[in-house]
Amino acid sequence: MQFTSEQRLDEAVLEREFTLGEIPGILWTPGSTSASAPAPLILLGPPPLGLRKTYPRLVARARHSAADGFTTATIELPGSGDRPRLPAAEKALADLRRAMEAGAPVSDEIIDALILPLVDKAVPEWQTTLDALLSLPEIGGPVGYSGGVISIGTRLAAVEPRISAAVLFAGSFIPRAMFEEARQVTIPLHVLLQWDDEGNDRQAALNLFDAFGSREKTLHANMGGHTGVPQFAGEAAAQFFTRHLK
Amino acid sequence: MQFTSEQRLDEAVLEREFTLGEIPGILWTPGSTSASAPAPLILLGPPPLGLRKTYPRLVARARHSAADGFTTATIELPGSGDRPRLPAAEKALADLRRAMEAGAPVSDEIIDALILPLVDKAVPEWQTTLDALLSLPEIGGPVGYSGGVISIGTRLAAVEPRISAAVLFAGSFIPRAMFEEARQVTIPLHVLLQWDDEGNDRQAALNLFDAFGSREKTLHANMGGHTGVPQFAGEAAAQFFTRHLK
Repeated sequence: MQFTSEQRLDEAVLEREFTLGEIPGILWTPGSTSASAPAPLILLGPPPLGLRKTYPRLVARARHSAADGFTTATIELPGSGDRPRLPAAEKALADLRRAMEAGAPVSDEIIDALILPLVDKAVPEWQTTLDALLSLPEIGGPVGYSGGVISIGTRLAAVEPRISAAVLFAGSFIPRAMFEEARQVTIPLHVLLQWDDEGNDRQAALNLFDAFGSREKTLHANMGGHTGVPQFAGEAAAQFFTRHLK
Repeated sequence: MQFTSEQRLDEAVLEREFTLGEIPGILWTPGSTSASAPAPLILLGPPPLGLRKTYPRLVARARHSAADGFTTATIELPGSGDRPRLPAAEKALADLRRAMEAGAPVSDEIIDALILPLVDKAVPEWQTTLDALLSLPEIGGPVGYSGGVISIGTRLAAVEPRISAAVLFAGSFIPRAMFEEARQVTIPLHVLLQWDDEGNDRQAALNLFDAFGSREKTLHANMGGHTGVPQFAGEAAAQFFTRHLK
């Protein structure tokens, strides 16, 4: 893990960009220096639009989390930002656009081809990132995962025992295989669903919530469209992490 | 409205029993006397089991609300406690038990006969109670409605303009007519659903949530069975009232 830049956002948050091999990422720690006491960590799953484009939303979440005493980190997804494209996913995206323009249903095959290669590549990268982050003295446990592509969060929650609690955003296509993987998840979950998100399959989201094996799981459904998660819903998610990671 | 008893639960809450015609009820005000500053009001919808039986749960909600600065009040439902039975609902309840013991589906006709007479009688009673409560100097506005039989809360939210926000508990049978009435509801709603409540029709609850006409509506689904609403879910509902009534 190589730090490539460092800036104080204000007295309360230190932002450092890093690379981990070819993967760029950003680390936000509470306090103005890296010498603060070890803090619990929240991995911020980005949407698949590139860190540069989603920076304003990510840094807002990072600042809010820092105020609650959490360190946060994010990495560029495979195929996003300046990272090499994923050819299978690119083809699936073109197929998806054709299907949607034709008003045709989006087939399971397209969803599988769009999401599964991304999940297969992203989950081990998050695990490697976690290795590196937890070796830093200023980061303690426990670790949460928040947001991003729900299939990545689902598999990470199922396979990575260092993750203690997760906030998942049910706003992207869900491959058939994820419903089975969801049964393996046992950590506390807080799932956000935008009820009137027209581009999202609401029933698939409800089915995935139903499938999670966790004894404590909560679904918060709200109005406001895909990107219109209300502020109070963000605060409820923050309270979930405070309850489980502190 | 006749007060029939008065006791301080502790320094923070004054409990007064009252009757309004033939209807018994309980009023809880924050502070140790009735001379406190006017507080916003939350009507606590009781489950149809009688106030005596549900008193421990109701008083816990009243104490929590008082700590947040709210006055709360509840009344005995028609046909509950010592009030005269509702013959149509009694017959429907017997039909319901027979259907469930036979493992048969519960028909729409049984649900209508069980719930609609209760809603028809309870909603005007809540409105009369609201008239009486709002004439007391120690009660100000705005007014919220919380819990109880969801069809009563739905109609009250649709027809009573003095109610500004409602927490509804999706845990009882829903007559077909309520889906249409739900479209008339426009106030902010916070709907609680116990996801693994085996005696409840989850899909009907989701359909009702979908039908509400409110621009701000939130669904919180949790595990824990019909009576196992987690403490954090109760706190989220309290925050909803604080957001909307203060």
